[in-house]
Amino acid sequence: MFAVVGRLSRGGLLIALLVAGLFGSGSSRAQSTAPDPLPSWNDGLTMKSITDFVARATTQGGTDFVSSAERIATFDNDGTLWSEQPMYFQMAFALDRVKTLAPQHPQWKSTQPFKAVLEGDLKALMAAGEKGAVELTMAIHAGMTTDEFEGIVKAWLASARHPRFQRPYTDLVFQPMIELLAYLRANGFKTYIVSGGGTEFMRPWTENVCGIPPEQVVGLSIVEQYQLKDDKPRIMRLPSIDFIDDGPGKPVGIHKFIGRRPVFAAGNSDGDLQMPQWTTLTAGARFGLIVHHTDAEREYAYDRQSAFGRLDKAPDEAPKRGWLTVDVKRDWKVIYPFQK
Amino acid sequence: MFAVVGRLSRGGLLIALLVAGLFGSGSSRAQSTAPDPLPSWNDGLTMKSITDFVARATTQGGTDFVSSAERIATFDNDGTLWSEQPMYFQMAFALDRVKTLAPQHPQWKSTQPFKAVLEGDLKALMAAGEKGAVELTMAIHAGMTTDEFEGIVKAWLASARHPRFQRPYTDLVFQPMIELLAYLRANGFKTYIVSGGGTEFMRPWTENVCGIPPEQVVGLSIVEQYQLKDDKPRIMRLPSIDFIDDGPGKPVGIHKFIGRRPVFAAGNSDGDLQMPQWTTLTAGARFGLIVHHTDAEREYAYDRQSAFGRLDKAPDEAPKRGWLTVDVKRDWKVIYPFQK
Repeated sequence: MFAVVGRLSRGGLLIALLVAGLFGSGSSRAQSTAPDPLPSWNDGLTMKSITDFVARATTQGGTDFVSSAERIATFDNDGTLWSEQPMYFQMAFALDRVKTLAPQHPQWKSTQPFKAVLEGDLKALMAAGEKGAVELTMAIHAGMTTDEFEGIVKAWLASARHPRFQRPYTDLVFQPMIELLAYLRANGFKTYIVSGGGTEFMRPWTENVCGIPPEQVVGLSIVEQYQLKDDKPRIMRLPSIDFIDDGPGKPVGIHKFIGRRPVFAAGNSDGDLQMPQWTTLTAGARFGLIVHHTDAEREYAYDRQSAFGRLDKAPDEAPKRGWLTVDVKRDWKVIYPFQK
Repeated sequence: MFAVVGRLSRGGLLIALLVAGLFGSGSSRAQSTAPDPLPSWNDGLTMKSITDFVARATTQGGTDFVSSAERIATFDNDGTLWSEQPMYFQMAFALDRVKTLAPQHPQWKSTQPFKAVLEGDLKALMAAGEKGAVELTMAIHAGMTTDEFEGIVKAWLASARHPRFQRPYTDLVFQPMIELLAYLRANGFKTYIVSGGGTEFMRPWTENVCGIPPEQVVGLSIVEQYQLKDDKPRIMRLPSIDFIDDGPGKPVGIHKFIGRRPVFAAGNSDGDLQMPQWTTLTAGARFGLIVHHTDAEREYAYDRQSAFGRLDKAPDEAPKRGWLTVDVKRDWKVIYPFQK
């Protein structure tokens, strides 16, 4: 939902309800002789370009050596580490949350954008525009303590099921990317999530699922306030956006939270365009990666032909910049962990 | 300078020019039999209470065991990791910077608050108030890229000398605290700076001097913007405050950047009051530490009797909360590394 607001603020209208995604050109195959550190990746040039980069970055004395302190790798989340179809998972959370809270807010039955959500009226929801999206977000993401919000997210993740796969949303992470994260960490990289989604929507699960601790999750944040009540400290979530970590906000978020320029960045959508720019357009060994969703059978296939017109910049820029395009259908032996 | 603005915004006026500090009750001495992991600390209850806590936090199966993922330790900077007298070092930087830039800004000779700085007119500087402080800050901290600002800070640190000790400001770190940071890290703690000072004023030196990498520095930040110019990405510093990491802002900053509640927090002033509250007022093994500056001969002695009235809350709360008060004169064998 935070992601929605972030993206809305740059022109789209509730586009988060529907799409995201990205593309790019393929790369041809070759045989790797080294032992495979990425078992869910098919052998081929895609995997080899990753392992070659890591070998170069970690070879002391080599021209591409990167000191371990500088081995920062940043990953987008939606569509890069887990699926984002048929809608951003945080949007599914937000819609479920409106339904859960509706009995306590009888006026929602007749007030937009809540009415639209309760009636499943997408058209009316979109008509509510940015103002409506912010109102919706704030109604369900603010006005509670950070501990309470964490509990709500965890309870939702435990009970909600993805409409197509009928599994917890956290089962819909991409096994090859989980392996890539672990592989980078095994080679001294510090792995971060840098996402347009809400930081506190991600932190409750990223450590267990992705091996990424809360302090390495950068996302959209809302304004918060410290309070000491009955000698018990708490942090309240206020109904105001603090930081939008999307598009040109991603390099800013990286600088704000990490303070180093990454050497490795992975994304999948136009919201990720500036992150690999910031990562790769400088001297030294650098790696950009764009996930292209091409497998309608095992996951989803979606392309730049979206009605929302925001899926064309990053894939077009990828080959020009020398970023690796990962073709899901071709390059991933397994997509979700449960398919292993 | 950022620190100034932060503090100003909560009521004081350029108080940063002059003071900061803190107090507390002492603790009696005892003999430690374990090998000393903190050679610049005098043997005694102060040191023992630290080593006892770390032993308990790291003893698996013990009731006070803290998992390594949860071993987060947060340290204030000014007055806790390095000196803050006769003025915050970032204020010294700001004043020097005004003098350096003055030839390019002839109008400063007749415009406040610049005129006051150039003439060393403290009274006029204070009369310029918060508006003046913000104007001053923005004139010298914004309107450049992050890389440029880093270079300016590094150049200043290389050339500036502390007025009393005639040494680079980074020589004025507290050797016992540097040892404490290293000791905690050796015991699996992740050490953070959480300071009212500017994040980007600290990051250029904290890794070398304190062993704290940029991604573990939380401080005051200004708004920044990503730009791609001539196909070269850069981040511009804009003249607007983004986040004030002081007082009640410290728990918020901790939650924002780290996302975990620390188990160990160290500070020295009222700006640090809420950080150990947030750290210790909860279940489990927790540790609060307040540095009390009592050694006018080797460092500085300053107390709650300040004209600015902001040095009384944290020291009064320390004994009530069970936080350790470190008495510099009594507890530290060595203060600065060059005194070893």
